[in-house]
Amino acid sequence: MKFKLGCTLNYNVESLSTFVFNIRVVETDCQKILTEQLIIDPDIRIDEYVTPIVENRYFRVNVPGGTNLNIFYQATVEMNHFYGDANTIAEVQPADLPVETFHYLYPSRYCESDRLHQLALSEFGELTTGYSRVTAICNWIYEKVIYEYGTSNPHTSAFDTATERIGVCRDFAHLAIAYCRALNIPARCVAGYAYGLNPPDFHACFEAYLGGRWYLFDATRLAPQNGIVRIGTGRDASDVAFATIFGDILLNKMDIFMEHIPEGNSSEVPELTTEAISIS
Amino acid sequence: MKFKLGCTLNYNVESLSTFVFNIRVVETDCQKILTEQLIIDPDIRIDEYVTPIVENRYFRVNVPGGTNLNIFYQATVEMNHFYGDANTIAEVQPADLPVETFHYLYPSRYCESDRLHQLALSEFGELTTGYSRVTAICNWIYEKVIYEYGTSNPHTSAFDTATERIGVCRDFAHLAIAYCRALNIPARCVAGYAYGLNPPDFHACFEAYLGGRWYLFDATRLAPQNGIVRIGTGRDASDVAFATIFGDILLNKMDIFMEHIPEGNSSEVPELTTEAISIS
Amino acid sequence: MKFKLGCTLNYNVESLSTFVFNIRVVETDCQKILTEQLIIDPDIRIDEYVTPIVENRYFRVNVPGGTNLNIFYQATVEMNHFYGDANTIAEVQPADLPVETFHYLYPSRYCESDRLHQLALSEFGELTTGYSRVTAICNWIYEKVIYEYGTSNPHTSAFDTATERIGVCRDFAHLAIAYCRALNIPARCVAGYAYGLNPPDFHACFEAYLGGRWYLFDATRLAPQNGIVRIGTGRDASDVAFATIFGDILLNKMDIFMEHIPEGNSSEVPELTTEAISIS
Amino acid sequence: MKFKLGCTLNYNVESLSTFVFNIRVVETDCQKILTEQLIIDPDIRIDEYVTPIVENRYFRVNVPGGTNLNIFYQATVEMNHFYGDANTIAEVQPADLPVETFHYLYPSRYCESDRLHQLALSEFGELTTGYSRVTAICNWIYEKVIYEYGTSNPHTSAFDTATERIGVCRDFAHLAIAYCRALNIPARCVAGYAYGLNPPDFHACFEAYLGGRWYLFDATRLAPQNGIVRIGTGRDASDVAFATIFGDILLNKMDIFMEHIPEGNSSEVPELTTEAISIS
Repeated sequence: MKFKLGCTLNYNVESLSTFVFNIRVVETDCQKILTEQLIIDPDIRIDEYVTPIVENRYFRVNVPGGTNLNIFYQATVEMNHFYGDANTIAEVQPADLPVETFHYLYPSRYCESDRLHQLALSEFGELTTGYSRVTAICNWIYEKVIYEYGTSNPHTSAFDTATERIGVCRDFAHLAIAYCRALNIPARCVAGYAYGLNPPDFHACFEAYLGGRWYLFDATRLAPQNGIVRIGTGRDASDVAFATIFGDILLNKMDIFMEHIPEGNSSEVPELTTEAISIS
Repeated sequence: MKFKLGCTLNYNVESLSTFVFNIRVVETDCQKILTEQLIIDPDIRIDEYVTPIVENRYFRVNVPGGTNLNIFYQATVEMNHFYGDANTIAEVQPADLPVETFHYLYPSRYCESDRLHQLALSEFGELTTGYSRVTAICNWIYEKVIYEYGTSNPHTSAFDTATERIGVCRDFAHLAIAYCRALNIPARCVAGYAYGLNPPDFHACFEAYLGGRWYLFDATRLAPQNGIVRIGTGRDASDVAFATIFGDILLNKMDIFMEHIPEGNSSEVPELTTEAISIS
Repeated sequence: MKFKLGCTLNYNVESLSTFVFNIRVVETDCQKILTEQLIIDPDIRIDEYVTPIVENRYFRVNVPGGTNLNIFYQATVEMNHFYGDANTIAEVQPADLPVETFHYLYPSRYCESDRLHQLALSEFGELTTGYSRVTAICNWIYEKVIYEYGTSNPHTSAFDTATERIGVCRDFAHLAIAYCRALNIPARCVAGYAYGLNPPDFHACFEAYLGGRWYLFDATRLAPQNGIVRIGTGRDASDVAFATIFGDILLNKMDIFMEHIPEGNSSEVPELTTEAISIS
Repeated sequence: MKFKLGCTLNYNVESLSTFVFNIRVVETDCQKILTEQLIIDPDIRIDEYVTPIVENRYFRVNVPGGTNLNIFYQATVEMNHFYGDANTIAEVQPADLPVETFHYLYPSRYCESDRLHQLALSEFGELTTGYSRVTAICNWIYEKVIYEYGTSNPHTSAFDTATERIGVCRDFAHLAIAYCRALNIPARCVAGYAYGLNPPDFHACFEAYLGGRWYLFDATRLAPQNGIVRIGTGRDASDVAFATIFGDILLNKMDIFMEHIPEGNSSEVPELTTEAISIS
């Protein structure tokens, strides 16, 4: 399945400011970049940083005051989704987890799995383990948490959302991640482009490590799982903000776009599914 | 039903200290003091304060340094419980609530009903209203929250317990109160002597205002509801601590005792019940 | 000093709703109501509730759906301020406090004095006790906390503000109250009309119990202390909201007004002052 | 300067359990391992994991039930401290920071720099920037936060400590880290062996990125900075726990030891210093 996606970001920069952007998609075994274009206007040198292992592609731009900064990013991406059999995907015990996944068991700023331990046990501890347990977590959140813009803020964490029961995509992801970690399932935050999101926006969902690989989940049901293209992964949203900005700026415009590129020989289309999908 | 109850408290007082005790039982339409004895050794003058409306009976003692302070309190109390029909007790709408009960709808230190609003709605919003809804809240807490000494602390609040799902009697009461208030049911904290509590201790439970009066509830199921004798009520435990102490002291001993006094002509005995009981 | 003050509140009431208003001023030894007018349009019966001791004057209105509700309140008030000598006003030890003031030492929803104990000791524990210590608390807050609309929300408490250092008048009052209580100084929240507030609004400040009476403090410095007329007092803002509303409504208009009525024979004018003022 | 250090850990393992240990020291430009010994009794295979960049040396052991597990670790380490000139070490602006240090500007579980932003600005925002500002942060914490065992718990975070003003070494480190990040100074948690710590224990302190490298700071003043040997670094204590355990175990014994090995030709001794030291 192929997508054309990207964004335009436009800022007024009042005084010398530093931007760290995280808007370019990564390459994985399942996600291949066919074409890519990044236009920075005015043409300012960028410093790139690719994180070890997960290979997020951050770049920094230092912008003088008085600049109107325009960032245009566009890529065409081919997704070769890995489809697992949801019925047979097991949880991996700590004894067998790849040691590098342990960091995704630890609590993070917005996913206080340590404080959610009893709640996770009480709600999900008795369930059959495996892929279906993470699905149950997603269903629980979908059913019990209200999706509403403007109800949470950048400080809102899973501990808040567990009780306040209202939030947006990052809050849904954070709560799911915290629940997974509390049950000893490694989980991490995914920032991405999401097909069909209305209004278009950057999206946050999550991956859980099950049956030997990272599977994609989205408790919001706002986008088809096979329509999500990864920008980056991290412990939580603090790692994968699309922009971290130091300075005095004004955001004028933020347009995100994403199209499905139909292919003659493929019947796969972006759709909500209960199949187990991995893009890692 | 009659009870003999009381306590012995013994403190070493290192330097001039002020104690505010809240250990004497109140009189209500349902709770009559037959005999009562308060012995303070050494014999220090007390300042009494009876709160308006709910008539908690605080007393203050100022104790010089170097004192071994012994407080002995004993009372025999006759309880004439009001038994309502749980099936017909309705919630009272804000339009009809006595205006003085509104204060028990507001959030308090340990019962952040404002932050628990969505959670309460999500868990109990669809239930049939009335006495049974408060019972459902108690059952929910009993089933989902672990009762274990030493797991919470004096700062623990309903917002914590909603997620941490572990605590002691005051945590159970605070969570229930917060849920009730979030559903517009006035609720308040009850401190009391509780028959059969093992080990003997001061107990915390709660009252909800339903069908025109305050009914007693206890989500811990650790004592029979008709075996609870009220010391005081308040917004939460901050109002009804058995002792508030200013100074440098050491608690040596705290013995609480309570006996049922059998009566020839009564078949009522202290027992766990699903009947609606009021002691107000 | 005389003031004419009041408010107009206008609501669209979509469905049967209950309002509890707290907009009328109280009478105290220092605050006398000369004239008063309350017009409710349409003319709906009110239920009044005057709280014990502090005598807040709540009233409830039950309003049918489809109503445009207009509340007009106006009063002329004569203030006979008690002026104390700030240099000689001492703190009152727990041994000597009137027992009914102890409730204002306990933590409340938005004033978690229990959690602020060490911070209060660290910042103010070494200062000379008395009126000047509460002034020091006010100065600390004025200097370290930024006053900015829209930065806090109804859940924000003193524990948040102690660290986040930004908020509005109720946040300033809550933090000051929490600090006072942590230092064993009874403190309570005051809701009132405030002369010269720009834009006009209901105001929150606080009183501390010192030298045998309640003195008025305002860490915001946004209004002259002798220009504040009390609506009510409570443990914190949860007790003295100007309106508590149950139902589906829309606030159309909220106008608050306050004028100083000059008197020929008085030289007292509303002004910021460092004198110790009591209106209780 | 040379040290001999290590630990003995003894556990009763009730049922099949997984341990991830983080007790071995790392090698850096300043820290060289001369000899090293790890004895696991019974002799169970370990899985090692060295993290990218910072090279923490985690290892996992899966231990059958019924085992008495004994871990003995010992190393001799040569420290070649980098000494900077505290007076000339500047902060590095976001425009010039190595992009891989940005992760240490983001908030983490126990270092909510996002919520401490205003507090950090209020307390340290006006100070001269550079090494001395981080020293000022350490002094502030040393002076205002009480060091006392048993006063904090594993959930305690910088946001709590900022107000509660009491805690242990990890709380001191977390608060300092949060302050640094709030001021745009990258900061990270260091777990290590600390010379002269009494009682001997694993220690937590922190590093701040200044003047182009990571400098070591310890707000507790409980150990000489040049007597600290690094086990690992991470965003906060959640990354560098000495043991993460999945299973039912009992810790019998935990002995940490550390000796200074005098060298004839060196006058450097472990001592509290105000010099700028780096071990990275």
